[in-house]
Amino acid sequence: MRRRVFFVSDRTGITAENLGETLLTQFPDFEFTRTRRPFIDSEAKARDIVAQIDQAATEDGAPPLVFSTLTDPDCQDIIAASRGSVFELFGTFIGPMEQTLKAHSTHKAGRMHGISDPRSYERRIQALNFTLDHDDGQRVQGLQAADVVLMGVSRCGKTPTSLYLAMQFNLRAANYPLTDDDLDATQLPAVLRPCRERLFGLTIQPERLARVREERRPDSRYASLQQCRSEVARAESLMRAIGVPFLDTTTISIEEIATTVVQRFRPTHD
Amino acid sequence: MRRRVFFVSDRTGITAENLGETLLTQFPDFEFTRTRRPFIDSEAKARDIVAQIDQAATEDGAPPLVFSTLTDPDCQDIIAASRGSVFELFGTFIGPMEQTLKAHSTHKAGRMHGISDPRSYERRIQALNFTLDHDDGQRVQGLQAADVVLMGVSRCGKTPTSLYLAMQFNLRAANYPLTDDDLDATQLPAVLRPCRERLFGLTIQPERLARVREERRPDSRYASLQQCRSEVARAESLMRAIGVPFLDTTTISIEEIATTVVQRFRPTHD
Repeated sequence: MRRRVFFVSDRTGITAENLGETLLTQFPDFEFTRTRRPFIDSEAKARDIVAQIDQAATEDGAPPLVFSTLTDPDCQDIIAASRGSVFELFGTFIGPMEQTLKAHSTHKAGRMHGISDPRSYERRIQALNFTLDHDDGQRVQGLQAADVVLMGVSRCGKTPTSLYLAMQFNLRAANYPLTDDDLDATQLPAVLRPCRERLFGLTIQPERLARVREERRPDSRYASLQQCRSEVARAESLMRAIGVPFLDTTTISIEEIATTVVQRFRPTHD
Repeated sequence: MRRRVFFVSDRTGITAENLGETLLTQFPDFEFTRTRRPFIDSEAKARDIVAQIDQAATEDGAPPLVFSTLTDPDCQDIIAASRGSVFELFGTFIGPMEQTLKAHSTHKAGRMHGISDPRSYERRIQALNFTLDHDDGQRVQGLQAADVVLMGVSRCGKTPTSLYLAMQFNLRAANYPLTDDDLDATQLPAVLRPCRERLFGLTIQPERLARVREERRPDSRYASLQQCRSEVARAESLMRAIGVPFLDTTTISIEEIATTVVQRFRPTHD
């Protein structure tokens, strides 16, 4: 079973795409072909998309799914009159929100993924720069300014998670790889003591770790199952001894790891 | 005007948060206080959240806004019976989707931000690793495997955009800083010739560039307005001469830059 899918937006369309993709995962038997149409900010462009949607409907003999976040009511109407099955994420919720807030919405193009608040955007870019500067323990000065410091053995998922924490949650997320020297100690590495309260550990099944490392350095001692087993066992033992919470990342995504970390350090936010 | 906002989900809640935040930008006169409640995967946890929502309603004398992506109908019902204004992103659209697709949804917890498709997740992590390895021109071998290569002067936004392209769009996004030597030439740098068709330029207003560089290296020649003006003028002139499309990033976000890049190189995708 196949179906065409359109993501239509007056800005980036990232919101339409993320919610649409979540909904599509509920229909695993279908094969979906996606088309992105961001920056649809005029009626002429909206009519152009409708022509594409209608053509797809004719070719497929079935209505394409259209996930749309348009703020302009006239553009919404144009898309709604297409032969697609239109899910208007914005139009559906903005009316009920106006009622409960007893206020009118601005109907300005969605700026969630634009720079709607320059200070907040600036904080986010600064968080990302901090994270890049403090990736893989490359800079230990300034660690006390981190919102969170991820620790774990090499290639257990620290860098992708740190980047996601910065980009999605505006967190200054440093990460620190546990080296052989650290693993032989029974104490927290000295450089991590100032940020003890903000440490979070990642661990991973040794078999999975060996496969990941094998891709980086084939046939190395570093990638051997024996080495991976030893490092993971010592890392977990160290984290237990010093009381650092940790999470097994083997079967979970960077978003799931990041959400767990945020939940621990910043469940409420402005 | 103030209002409490809850993001409730049986998984990460990132979809609920992203769409909710987009909708909240339509009400700029309100001050919203947000609470994240991910991993609500049992009726007991749902009832616990309802207690918090109801308490907030009592304290504020107004219903909190609740953006929810729950797949379990029983949990949805529990939240819907709270004293909040509930926007059920999932429940609202899944019924109409079932009708148009003439199929039942799985009602499994949303795995958009989990590892629903291990091969797709693997591709994404590989794209991210490629991007990190090819950040800032640090590795030029393998550039021909890039989906896109961003070029521009130092600190014009290449690294954050590359990372976003990898994380959100699964693209292998390398980036290459134009150095003084490159800028004095009238030809494409030799290392970029194999990926000529996948080049995309970023530029920036010199005044903004000077402020960004000043934060990195205060009072340096690198951050001087004169140097920034010269580099930007030569970079734009070079990109025009060699026919590389480019975008001014001064007032747009990394999501907007990334969407523009994707639109050029990969508008349709599976």
